[in-house]
Amino acid sequence: MNPVNIGIVGLGTVGAGTVNVLRRNADEIARRAGREIRVTHAVVQDPDKQRDCDISAFELTTDPFEITDNPSIDVVVELMGGEVLAKDVVMRAIANGKHVVTANKALIAIHGNEIFESAQLHGSMVAFEAAVGGGISIIKAIREGLAGNRIESLAGIINGTGNYILTGMSDGGSEFSDMLADAQQLGYAEADPTFDVEGIDAAHKLTILASIAYGIPLQFDKVYTEGISHITQEDIVHAAELGYRIKHLGIAARTNAGIELRVHPCLVPQRALLANVDGVMNAILVNGDAVGPTLHYGSGAGAEPTASAVVADLVDVVRALTTDPGNRVPHLAFQPGAMSDLPVLDMEQVETAYYLRLNVVNRPGVLAEITRVLGDLGISIEAILQKGSGVAEDVLPIIILTQRTVESGMDKALEQLKSLATTIGDVTRIRLEQITD
Amino acid sequence: MNPVNIGIVGLGTVGAGTVNVLRRNADEIARRAGREIRVTHAVVQDPDKQRDCDISAFELTTDPFEITDNPSIDVVVELMGGEVLAKDVVMRAIANGKHVVTANKALIAIHGNEIFESAQLHGSMVAFEAAVGGGISIIKAIREGLAGNRIESLAGIINGTGNYILTGMSDGGSEFSDMLADAQQLGYAEADPTFDVEGIDAAHKLTILASIAYGIPLQFDKVYTEGISHITQEDIVHAAELGYRIKHLGIAARTNAGIELRVHPCLVPQRALLANVDGVMNAILVNGDAVGPTLHYGSGAGAEPTASAVVADLVDVVRALTTDPGNRVPHLAFQPGAMSDLPVLDMEQVETAYYLRLNVVNRPGVLAEITRVLGDLGISIEAILQKGSGVAEDVLPIIILTQRTVESGMDKALEQLKSLATTIGDVTRIRLEQITD
Repeated sequence: MNPVNIGIVGLGTVGAGTVNVLRRNADEIARRAGREIRVTHAVVQDPDKQRDCDISAFELTTDPFEITDNPSIDVVVELMGGEVLAKDVVMRAIANGKHVVTANKALIAIHGNEIFESAQLHGSMVAFEAAVGGGISIIKAIREGLAGNRIESLAGIINGTGNYILTGMSDGGSEFSDMLADAQQLGYAEADPTFDVEGIDAAHKLTILASIAYGIPLQFDKVYTEGISHITQEDIVHAAELGYRIKHLGIAARTNAGIELRVHPCLVPQRALLANVDGVMNAILVNGDAVGPTLHYGSGAGAEPTASAVVADLVDVVRALTTDPGNRVPHLAFQPGAMSDLPVLDMEQVETAYYLRLNVVNRPGVLAEITRVLGDLGISIEAILQKGSGVAEDVLPIIILTQRTVESGMDKALEQLKSLATTIGDVTRIRLEQITD
Repeated sequence: MNPVNIGIVGLGTVGAGTVNVLRRNADEIARRAGREIRVTHAVVQDPDKQRDCDISAFELTTDPFEITDNPSIDVVVELMGGEVLAKDVVMRAIANGKHVVTANKALIAIHGNEIFESAQLHGSMVAFEAAVGGGISIIKAIREGLAGNRIESLAGIINGTGNYILTGMSDGGSEFSDMLADAQQLGYAEADPTFDVEGIDAAHKLTILASIAYGIPLQFDKVYTEGISHITQEDIVHAAELGYRIKHLGIAARTNAGIELRVHPCLVPQRALLANVDGVMNAILVNGDAVGPTLHYGSGAGAEPTASAVVADLVDVVRALTTDPGNRVPHLAFQPGAMSDLPVLDMEQVETAYYLRLNVVNRPGVLAEITRVLGDLGISIEAILQKGSGVAEDVLPIIILTQRTVESGMDKALEQLKSLATTIGDVTRIRLEQITD
């Protein structure tokens, strides 16, 4: 059969990785796909810049619309990033009847509903496996592998930079700022690390995962998003003493009232596999009603792991080129006419357990006051750690693990705890999930 | 669109689970697949037997060929097990132009080449996700999710019964026979546990995984297969002291000379995620040249986890009903005309590291003799553990970890070590892999 012609928009890290993988494994890929997958064009901003791949086999251009409008190109691979020009490029490719593969999580999380609607109209496939979890193929796992399940919940380490920082803080005793500098030096974190450490990148990815898990439209603006920049060495040490590790999780869960969508640091039992996913690695725990817990682990970023997902999408698209559009895997797992209107819950409605740390005046009766505040609000205590140093100190930390309770109640509790005369400064609150995998 | 009609052959554990999942999640499944998936017929040996599912919605028969020959049935789901009658049923369904979903690993491992050839000829799909790793969807992950990769190696805990026994021996200090009795009482192990504990079940599964990873024909008879019945509490304790856990692994690896295919107990570094996969859970570590290590974890058996994979296959088949057979995912990942003729290596050609345990006469010079034997054969020692008890004993155990070496050399070394005058009894040899995930 004829080769399939690919135009790649963007030859940065992932673009170059994709070119390299397609070239190095050309034979195996063609033996799987049944057709040669050939890059014929690529779009770059600066044609004279040195690239991490051989560019001799295809044509370079600086205008992405030369590719979207080129009738010889079958599939446009969007690897430029950003969500303004990238959106125009993808929409134009779709309008021209081309199929699209993209690694752009922001694009899908923010404009996905509109993009998929247009793709549906034009019979185009838009594949986005590389947008979440790099090479893990978590989109395929949820959308196809677990298609028989009612998904109960998912919890993922879906930002490698954040996990690198937390792992370093946990293993090496460093503070956040040191590990961030370290991550920046290694190229894991950008000069402006906001997207990674404040959870925005993870929220983009969680938006996508939740949509395919529950059949709800993409709703990035409804994700509760909290980063890891306030996590301290002190909290990591206390958590460890109590048998937990702190991970930055994206969590989606189905409840009777609606869907929870939240990104925040979270204490996880040390024995859980998820607690032992270290460094830049990613992992997503998915609980289905039939299958039970499943864990999907691998490199969440980097040139070739991401390229692995891009190429898998290309093979899928090539195989489906001749299919009836009505019988393809739906973009968001559920048929467009069969999406769910389950509401996304506000964070105040979410029920979870908590780790609290207070600094209190060291005098009798303090603990009684604290436990009375929690008790009056119906919050049950799971464990208390009072760090007596043996020597008389004015101020002591008290660590409390609570049982599951509603966030709005915990908000009230924190206000009251802060206002106690014996509480010094702020009260630290980190959520806790008794994850069993 | 019209419903798709399913005939299920076998209403045992997995059959009943499949009926229950299809019924309970009918709405979500139809919203994903775009069509209703409806069980219209089921085959049982004894129509009067109590079943773990509601059988009121379909017709029961005792003759599987009533289903394979019924023109109203679109897909035959083979869940009867065994490889004689099951083969006839599957071949007849294919000959009648029906699609097949099966959970039968023995059938695929032993007769898969013939079955897929016939399926190819008749334009039928034969889906077998449930044959390996229960609900993990490892077939899909390797065949589609990692389609851009050259697979370097895979190592899996793919028999839940064996893992349950080894986990119990490791955590609870029991011996093999006690844990086996325990597993039998809980229904994890059969009255005749040979298939599970001697590695035959794992070898069936490894055969399938290796074929889709490397594009080689199914070659069950070439798998080196060693069980766990000779693993002792003593070896588990020594391994732990040296930082390892003993797991029963199925390993496939690509070398310059060919493909390694082997099932055997194996020391794995304690920190590896794979070492922490406990109880009846399964996990497969797959290394691709682009993606690096990926781990796929979940329930490897049981009614509903297996049903999860069966239903996912049904959804895949339903979606592909209208496709051109030439553009479907190939049964064994690679196009039938593009399979590889890479040879499967004999176990003597395999290179791995080793754990050795000898009981020796407690006198000076013994260690020198042992290390001379290994040194003369070019086998490097990684670690030695000599358990001096402090009190004078006649016989002491010596534990040696070697670096990687070829199995044929180790066979010679074992012969020579056994023949030393100072060696008492047999020499224990367990393979060791420095797995990093």
